[in-house]
Amino acid sequence: MELLKKMCEIHAPSGEEVTMKEFILEYIENNKNNWKVKPKLHYGKGFQDNLIMVFGKPTTAIFAHLDSIGFTVKYNNEIVKIGGPVTDDGIVLVGEDSIGKIEGKVINKGDKIYIDYPRTIDRGTSLVFKMNFRENKDYIQSCYLDNRLGVFNALQLCRTLENGIVVFSTWEEHGGGSVGYLGKFIYEKYGVYQALISDITWVTEGVKHGEGCVISLRDSAIPRKSYVDKIINIAEKSEVLFQLEVESSGGSDGNSLQKSDYPWDWCFIGAPENNVHSPDEKVHKKDIQSMLLLYKVLMEKL
Amino acid sequence: MELLKKMCEIHAPSGEEVTMKEFILEYIENNKNNWKVKPKLHYGKGFQDNLIMVFGKPTTAIFAHLDSIGFTVKYNNEIVKIGGPVTDDGIVLVGEDSIGKIEGKVINKGDKIYIDYPRTIDRGTSLVFKMNFRENKDYIQSCYLDNRLGVFNALQLCRTLENGIVVFSTWEEHGGGSVGYLGKFIYEKYGVYQALISDITWVTEGVKHGEGCVISLRDSAIPRKSYVDKIINIAEKSEVLFQLEVESSGGSDGNSLQKSDYPWDWCFIGAPENNVHSPDEKVHKKDIQSMLLLYKVLMEKL
Amino acid sequence: MELLKKMCEIHAPSGEEVTMKEFILEYIENNKNNWKVKPKLHYGKGFQDNLIMVFGKPTTAIFAHLDSIGFTVKYNNEIVKIGGPVTDDGIVLVGEDSIGKIEGKVINKGDKIYIDYPRTIDRGTSLVFKMNFRENKDYIQSCYLDNRLGVFNALQLCRTLENGIVVFSTWEEHGGGSVGYLGKFIYEKYGVYQALISDITWVTEGVKHGEGCVISLRDSAIPRKSYVDKIINIAEKSEVLFQLEVESSGGSDGNSLQKSDYPWDWCFIGAPENNVHSPDEKVHKKDIQSMLLLYKVLMEKL
Repeated sequence: MELLKKMCEIHAPSGEEVTMKEFILEYIENNKNNWKVKPKLHYGKGFQDNLIMVFGKPTTAIFAHLDSIGFTVKYNNEIVKIGGPVTDDGIVLVGEDSIGKIEGKVINKGDKIYIDYPRTIDRGTSLVFKMNFRENKDYIQSCYLDNRLGVFNALQLCRTLENGIVVFSTWEEHGGGSVGYLGKFIYEKYGVYQALISDITWVTEGVKHGEGCVISLRDSAIPRKSYVDKIINIAEKSEVLFQLEVESSGGSDGNSLQKSDYPWDWCFIGAPENNVHSPDEKVHKKDIQSMLLLYKVLMEKL
Repeated sequence: MELLKKMCEIHAPSGEEVTMKEFILEYIENNKNNWKVKPKLHYGKGFQDNLIMVFGKPTTAIFAHLDSIGFTVKYNNEIVKIGGPVTDDGIVLVGEDSIGKIEGKVINKGDKIYIDYPRTIDRGTSLVFKMNFRENKDYIQSCYLDNRLGVFNALQLCRTLENGIVVFSTWEEHGGGSVGYLGKFIYEKYGVYQALISDITWVTEGVKHGEGCVISLRDSAIPRKSYVDKIINIAEKSEVLFQLEVESSGGSDGNSLQKSDYPWDWCFIGAPENNVHSPDEKVHKKDIQSMLLLYKVLMEKL
Repeated sequence: MELLKKMCEIHAPSGEEVTMKEFILEYIENNKNNWKVKPKLHYGKGFQDNLIMVFGKPTTAIFAHLDSIGFTVKYNNEIVKIGGPVTDDGIVLVGEDSIGKIEGKVINKGDKIYIDYPRTIDRGTSLVFKMNFRENKDYIQSCYLDNRLGVFNALQLCRTLENGIVVFSTWEEHGGGSVGYLGKFIYEKYGVYQALISDITWVTEGVKHGEGCVISLRDSAIPRKSYVDKIINIAEKSEVLFQLEVESSGGSDGNSLQKSDYPWDWCFIGAPENNVHSPDEKVHKKDIQSMLLLYKVLMEKL
């Protein structure tokens, strides 16, 4: 869990994913010799801050978004949201501007939100939740499990992955914008059009902590049923614990694939958390484990 | 009208259009020998559950969406919408899960909607309106005239179509997602960038039953005026009855073409209905007739 | 300012940009001999009413939208919005239908908006604000400074531009739809993926008249920070007056580039106005001047 903890602390809100990209490039460099298959990497010019790894002869691509929610400093320490963070008074935010490091608490005044800080912070400075990583026998708790855990899952998978594509995407929390061209590249270069979305979902009335990784049947978008049925069929034949989710709201990189000019099939598969989009996101270890197991099976059989 | 009636009963909400696709493939197989021109078909791998027919040397493509609105079963027989169906208490829904066929009534409780059914239905099961097809001298009434009537119109047209493309698209009722790549394929392979949207619109203050097929000047999206003017010009010179519509809301596959990365001109042309998105959609036979006549003229002259 | 004044009066709401395109083609024809570099033009078939000019060896493209906000006549002189115009009672609108020229005032009745006019106007007729162009020592005031001023800025720049692309786009005020394929064309043909959005923004708490052209750090969309930082760095080294903006709402052609299937970096750079989307949009001349200077520097250094 050291890897996950490290990643939860990296400052990389939507638009500033470069730090996460560099962390992952270094991780790959340091670890790929222990991987069953060495991947081909695509990144840099034409890829913005995204990163694609191609293993063997792929038929399916995993999308895990690098970015987190956060805030942008506006005028006079007013802050505006990046994505949809919780904004309760007292939440501690951190960042850095031209003067130095910043740490201060959220204050709500009327319908505006501020950071309580003794000087005026540079316009456009981004702020993220201060990390407080907690672990016990059953649970992991921290900000940004969404989606550093989805990234962690994909990286763990790399150790044994023989055939498949791993995509680290950007801007997922704030309107998207990378998955269209990443999907285009993959579809055109590798002929792959099956996607799994490695991301974190919600504990709800129908989805419980500790009952396994979630296969989402729909959220605000509806994936093609025949593809999702194929996945469920494989999952049922495996012995991996999983839960089925049905939501009418929420979305993921799957929505962006759906709306792109390429015929992607996609399915969201990830562990559930509560305290969503807060500094206290909490995930059951069993669900992290079943997520990895499920991805292993699916990447072999799909 | 037997063909229309049959199609209104097919279970094919957004994401499950495969049943409609198969029905149409069989219809084509059984009828194409009576068509003036035999079309080239594109479907299968890379097309999800969409279907494209190409006749002769095309300059214009007709888009008719295969999918219908409906519901997805969530937890404990709560249901969530596919597209924007009417949800009045007592509406009868049908579907099928792993246990068997389902038929039950809509019940609203607070801000949630349920299906009244004696056992818990499988998560993710899709439900559609139970069909009650009615026909008299002047009107057709049924669920899903939107858009089985648009599909019917396109299939009737095939009998005499010499040059043109007919596209059966998916997900129109729930956020789209197929028209982008269908448009891409057509634009790149056939150089066609003129579209007619064969779909059903609304009876309103300005659009009446029996006064002819509607040419829509705009809805939530605004088509290029010079293209719509060309269409109106052709319509005026024909003797076909038609009405002009102006709306500020609503949308169609036209919106998806507009937002795609290809320079499509598009125009919505279809019969109007009342009781929109309910089991009681009602269309005047005269408007169905003028829709077919108008498409015939346009596909020749455009 | 004669050129700007002329353009502010051209009737070209979203979907009817053809008039602006023709005006600009004529302007280019009449002026290009005085330009340092003669551009290659792309327009016509496959470009709808957009226009692209390519100068030298480009690395950056300027996007300026041609269309304006306005209204469409619905039934019985009710009008619906094109984009987001102000709709105060008494605002004078102009247009033309099959009977002749129209001029009338906005009247609000309940939640509907009408034009007060003695006869029924043709359905689908578009109306725009009647121009009242005002100029004093410091300010320009008129309808449609957004975005005829952005277009003006781009045309002024053409006189000295050596390397770069100028794009005149359509539908920006009403949902977009051209920038995706324009971006595609430019990316594929010229390998360019850096964009500057030449458009008009808002005077706010943090952005003042006369304090220079605005570089927007974000609005509803968030551009890639490393690209915006590069721009600010160049701007700081120049002696051009500029201001930094942070907003949580609003958008531009930048959003469309962001959501397209191509990896565009983009940044909104433009003068601020007050009385936004009204007949009384007002911009400080100093900000117009600094906008042009800033674009000159950026097109050289970026």
